Amino acid sequence: MTDHRIYNFNAGPSALPEKVLRNIQSSFLNFNGSGMSVTEISHRSTEFDQVINDAVARAKRLMKLDDRFHVLFIQGGASLQFAMIPMNFLAAGQTADYVNTGTWSTKAIKEAQIQKKDIQVIASSEDRDFSYIPKDFTVNQDARFVHLTSNNTIKGTQFASFPDTGNVPIICDMSSDFFSRPVPVDKFAMLYGGAQKNLGPSGTAVVILRKDFLEKAFGSSENQELPTMLRYETYAQKNSMYNTPPCFGIYTIELVLKWIEEDMGGLEGIEKHNQEKGGLLYDFMDASDFYRPTADKDSRSLMNVTFRLPSEELEARFIAQATQEGLGGLKGHRSVGGCRASIYNATTLEGVKALIAFMEKFAKKEAA
Amino acid sequence: MTDHRIYNFNAGPSALPEKVLRNIQSSFLNFNGSGMSVTEISHRSTEFDQVINDAVARAKRLMKLDDRFHVLFIQGGASLQFAMIPMNFLAAGQTADYVNTGTWSTKAIKEAQIQKKDIQVIASSEDRDFSYIPKDFTVNQDARFVHLTSNNTIKGTQFASFPDTGNVPIICDMSSDFFSRPVPVDKFAMLYGGAQKNLGPSGTAVVILRKDFLEKAFGSSENQELPTMLRYETYAQKNSMYNTPPCFGIYTIELVLKWIEEDMGGLEGIEKHNQEKGGLLYDFMDASDFYRPTADKDSRSLMNVTFRLPSEELEARFIAQATQEGLGGLKGHRSVGGCRASIYNATTLEGVKALIAFMEKFAKKEAA
Repeated sequence: MTDHRIYNFNAGPSALPEKVLRNIQSSFLNFNGSGMSVTEISHRSTEFDQVINDAVARAKRLMKLDDRFHVLFIQGGASLQFAMIPMNFLAAGQTADYVNTGTWSTKAIKEAQIQKKDIQVIASSEDRDFSYIPKDFTVNQDARFVHLTSNNTIKGTQFASFPDTGNVPIICDMSSDFFSRPVPVDKFAMLYGGAQKNLGPSGTAVVILRKDFLEKAFGSSENQELPTMLRYETYAQKNSMYNTPPCFGIYTIELVLKWIEEDMGGLEGIEKHNQEKGGLLYDFMDASDFYRPTADKDSRSLMNVTFRLPSEELEARFIAQATQEGLGGLKGHRSVGGCRASIYNATTLEGVKALIAFMEKFAKKEAA
Repeated sequence: MTDHRIYNFNAGPSALPEKVLRNIQSSFLNFNGSGMSVTEISHRSTEFDQVINDAVARAKRLMKLDDRFHVLFIQGGASLQFAMIPMNFLAAGQTADYVNTGTWSTKAIKEAQIQKKDIQVIASSEDRDFSYIPKDFTVNQDARFVHLTSNNTIKGTQFASFPDTGNVPIICDMSSDFFSRPVPVDKFAMLYGGAQKNLGPSGTAVVILRKDFLEKAFGSSENQELPTMLRYETYAQKNSMYNTPPCFGIYTIELVLKWIEEDMGGLEGIEKHNQEKGGLLYDFMDASDFYRPTADKDSRSLMNVTFRLPSEELEARFIAQATQEGLGGLKGHRSVGGCRASIYNATTLEGVKALIAFMEKFAKKEAA
């Protein structure tokens, strides 16, 4: 099998930096001179301690966190976080605000409601099929937190900046734009995301959690009755190793964070890289009669570029021909149809240019 | 970095078949001609559907399951299962029996108690430091299930056969002897285990669940209020893909199951292989004055061989010298000390013979 690689625009799991993949591959039978695969070493070994500690240290440096924050690795994806957040942080008598910007926000809200927690949906863009980011909403100043989804993978929208929430800290699902740009961490109680878009393989969620927020939450007697694996305190006390963590995922995340830090110029550098890629693609479409981005201009995502063609029939042909020409993953989410190019951190400028060249050629041929 | 490999006796994560590792390595940048790494393909793709469906089919063939059972992949390890089992299967007014054979049983019991479920510990080997498997216990015939731990990684004991539990089905944590021998599946409502000992990397638990047991449980209104990610029904209805599953883990498990089925003669073949390895090691120690197995003879594990040397100082030297000679992971669990050779499915006969040769040499030198 050769190493012939396509341009991968999958929404997640998605492209990883080729350098990281080659690094994993070359040492896969003998990690760091241990004589074992990284999948075979003990999570209690010095080798793995170095991996997880380096991943935490790099995450802290990149995000300009300080010792006020934990960096945790938890299984179950963002979907388990949707349940753990209200479970851990909303005791009886406490309330939280949620902003609904699409499928994943809706699921986060649903998990709080299943637990019969007292939450309010203070803003929503459902009225126009989640094609924009709501502005000018007011956060209830008694809320424990306000929950946002920073980037909406399916609808292709993204908070360009984070709203003023007064004294109420934000808990933010950043699954699809985590570590893609600098973030004003002072506004947040927690930032979390599944790794499988910008950071690594599926199966590991990264959770950045403010220590004082966790400590206050844990005072409530209700939380003492939570199952051990569903308490953030369990992960915070044991450096994410109360039980065997997802070692391969954490290892890959370490390498991706290293790549961001050492090869891409940190979050400032990767933001520029992402702005350049997204800019090229949106500018091309804005100048075209054939391709129509679906999100409002001021709400466009730099990670998931959703667009339509003049007809569904053309869309099907576009996706099929692109696949044939080595441009994969351009089909929109099954719940919305259309097309989507996910251009996360690891997508190269070369890949975006190849996509634009194909789009140009396709439009010319079909419009003729 | 060369591919020089040690003999790996880690308790978990632990040795994987070298053939499987080489397969993953060679296709790591281009899985199945897709032009993507297996870590980059969508879980909604045809490629991944084939992986997960093949893993399920092989698990069913190997265990001689039939359509009465689901085969599910769930994140969070056995530790999350400890919580999900009482959460899903014990409604108010229902009761369950637990047998306590060591650290992991104790944790399973604790998670049921945290939830204030009505459970009884009907047998325990705590009186002699969990060095044996209790016999002749009586299962309460009103219990919904009886929970066992088939193999005790830390204490080195194993159920040689499964007890008669009358009409009460067994739920069994098989984390450390899953797919290491044939199992009389008719006795079980559920068998589960973390993959990181016999089946793959850490981060994926395999759950075999009888459909009618799940359906009955789900009739209770309490279960309707469980978070989506903590309901077995969620996984059963969506072929383990309600959210993004741990794709790399499932892929590795598929390859390991293929290796058991096609290269090792199925569970009957692997059982013989494991009996031969364990037999050699225990026979050697039984004939020695220097090494003392810690488990009762009729309760010895074929997976985790725990033993002591005449002194802790000798044990420390034994472990250090073994490591130098390329025999890794022989330290006993930090909670019990001593030595432990974990000889799971992927440990070779050659590895066990190398260990015995070293033990012989070490004893001769130290006894002299």
